[in-house]
Amino acid sequence: MNTPSNLQNDVFLRALQCQPVPYTPVWMMRQAGRYLPEYRATRARAGSFLQLCQTPELACEVTLQPLARFPLDAAILFSDILTIPHAMGLGLQFETGEGPVIQRPVRNAADVSKLGVPDPHQELRYVMDAVSLIRRELHGRVPLIGFAGSPWTVATYCVEGGSSRDFARIKGMMYDDPASLHGLLHILTQATIQYLNAQIEAGVQAVMVFDTWGSVLTPACYREFSLQYMEQIVAGTKRQAEGRTVPRILFTKGAGPLLAEMAKLDCEALGVDWMTDLAQARQWVGDRKALQGNLDPCVLYAQPGRIREEVARVLASFGHGHGHVFNLGHGIHPAIPPEHAAAMIQAVHELSPQYHSL
Amino acid sequence: MNTPSNLQNDVFLRALQCQPVPYTPVWMMRQAGRYLPEYRATRARAGSFLQLCQTPELACEVTLQPLARFPLDAAILFSDILTIPHAMGLGLQFETGEGPVIQRPVRNAADVSKLGVPDPHQELRYVMDAVSLIRRELHGRVPLIGFAGSPWTVATYCVEGGSSRDFARIKGMMYDDPASLHGLLHILTQATIQYLNAQIEAGVQAVMVFDTWGSVLTPACYREFSLQYMEQIVAGTKRQAEGRTVPRILFTKGAGPLLAEMAKLDCEALGVDWMTDLAQARQWVGDRKALQGNLDPCVLYAQPGRIREEVARVLASFGHGHGHVFNLGHGIHPAIPPEHAAAMIQAVHELSPQYHSL
Repeated sequence: MNTPSNLQNDVFLRALQCQPVPYTPVWMMRQAGRYLPEYRATRARAGSFLQLCQTPELACEVTLQPLARFPLDAAILFSDILTIPHAMGLGLQFETGEGPVIQRPVRNAADVSKLGVPDPHQELRYVMDAVSLIRRELHGRVPLIGFAGSPWTVATYCVEGGSSRDFARIKGMMYDDPASLHGLLHILTQATIQYLNAQIEAGVQAVMVFDTWGSVLTPACYREFSLQYMEQIVAGTKRQAEGRTVPRILFTKGAGPLLAEMAKLDCEALGVDWMTDLAQARQWVGDRKALQGNLDPCVLYAQPGRIREEVARVLASFGHGHGHVFNLGHGIHPAIPPEHAAAMIQAVHELSPQYHSL
Repeated sequence: MNTPSNLQNDVFLRALQCQPVPYTPVWMMRQAGRYLPEYRATRARAGSFLQLCQTPELACEVTLQPLARFPLDAAILFSDILTIPHAMGLGLQFETGEGPVIQRPVRNAADVSKLGVPDPHQELRYVMDAVSLIRRELHGRVPLIGFAGSPWTVATYCVEGGSSRDFARIKGMMYDDPASLHGLLHILTQATIQYLNAQIEAGVQAVMVFDTWGSVLTPACYREFSLQYMEQIVAGTKRQAEGRTVPRILFTKGAGPLLAEMAKLDCEALGVDWMTDLAQARQWVGDRKALQGNLDPCVLYAQPGRIREEVARVLASFGHGHGHVFNLGHGIHPAIPPEHAAAMIQAVHELSPQYHSL
């Protein structure tokens, strides 16, 4: 069992709680990913993306790869937001170039009635094994982030049968048969609470909920079909582990002014995409929550000098104060040169201390 | 030459100018489209989508089809936002199921230097011929809307070579070589001003600029690379024709709080997508501009009774006052049953008069 004292770098955890830090911590969504040649090599050895997720030794290996290259302030468990529907037996596959496919989509009350909450220590045990292994291999260097998809976002895949452009099926269900959709969201919420708590018990030190598709909803539908269930998740997840607060980060991509409503939830931090200025986000959110973001991932296509300028703009837009975790506004793209990610991280560490001085 | 007096229904034009109207006018983005079997028949006769756009008789036929079915308050020219890059010789094709493809994409200063502003009376004459023919066939029943894509949105196709998920190429250009991108946007802006003015001369009675992809930008980049050029367009387009104001509608999908900045431009109306409440939009915009929107297009998958409820919610969210044009928040989907569109239009006409009483 780890104790608080053996975490060498807790800048990330302190920033998430708006506590004083000497510089702005930084990590990247999808930092263990295809832009790294060593990731592509491990992925090739695994055979498939799912196999990579399900093999703790390989999931651990790719989780640690970006930390070997870059002075990141956090590690994030390598996994996928669709582990829960996979564990529910919906038949998840990843087709090359097509994204995820759910072979047995959920489209009506009868489909929902067949679903059960998966046991995180049985069907999802491979995730907990990966967490334990990663914690051991991290040797307390930086905190480990666990995560899950939001119920709404996971439900879009369950109902659509995969990725979608217009979310016609799930929205048809939402407008015509909201009771069945609420049934699905309820089960996904219970599964997510148990799943995140098991991750925390296995050793993750912060958790993040990814609501990638919340912003395709009207504000009223967002409240009813996405926000409500994230509220239940933050209410149901453990707040403490190993004698330390486990910060909860909620991220609805495209939230915009809905950040003000997210700020009322009992979480520690909110993710912000690049379409919202951090100065504006601070106005909406107040000083109650830390903010995580928000460099446009496409900035990393530019040359290092330009990357540094854009990092400076993001730091300045948050301004003075401690509750900022630097990140991209969404996952790093596969075609980004790793040196460009290095330039971003270096710029954050070099340019941010001025915002934390007294 | 038509005179103001021979327009039988000008509710749409008056609402766009925030003038008193007896009910909320309604039309649908992509109302001449694949959800109509008669459209699919004409399209099949045309052979290809481009041929349909380029044959004035057929473009006229499909423009009028939804008006034969539904009591819509406006017609919109059947065309495409990519007519300008097509006229510039970039090699536009529509591949089945793939969306548009630009065969000679624009990616650097040398590519930009080869571009010229197309003459709307030469390369784009087929559009003007369609406008004249539609006006003749409309017999003054309702106003005819002309349109163009925003320079930023059209540029995304020119640079990416087609549709895009992450806009990596154009954003790479934006961050690394902004001068070349501004060069492209300048030419597209000049072309769009001439194109819209030619449409107005040919007979359109309102114009709309579609900025479908403005919201993939940071707020600062939106101002510099999209809003600035729409400002030039509204400054450069004719304000009067046939003794009547020609209202200009700007629509950035996903604008959210940026509506407040769009409201400073010299246009008459702003389009609003379903992710923003109209009540919130009115707060941001004030009473200076009319608002056009904003039913979630997916509502039309639901049964007519539910459609009516959601129409009522949209009307109530705008509330009392005259500056509202009812529309979907984006184009109607191809799989929508036409009777569902009819239910929406009927509901708007039946439920809206209460908001226009004294």
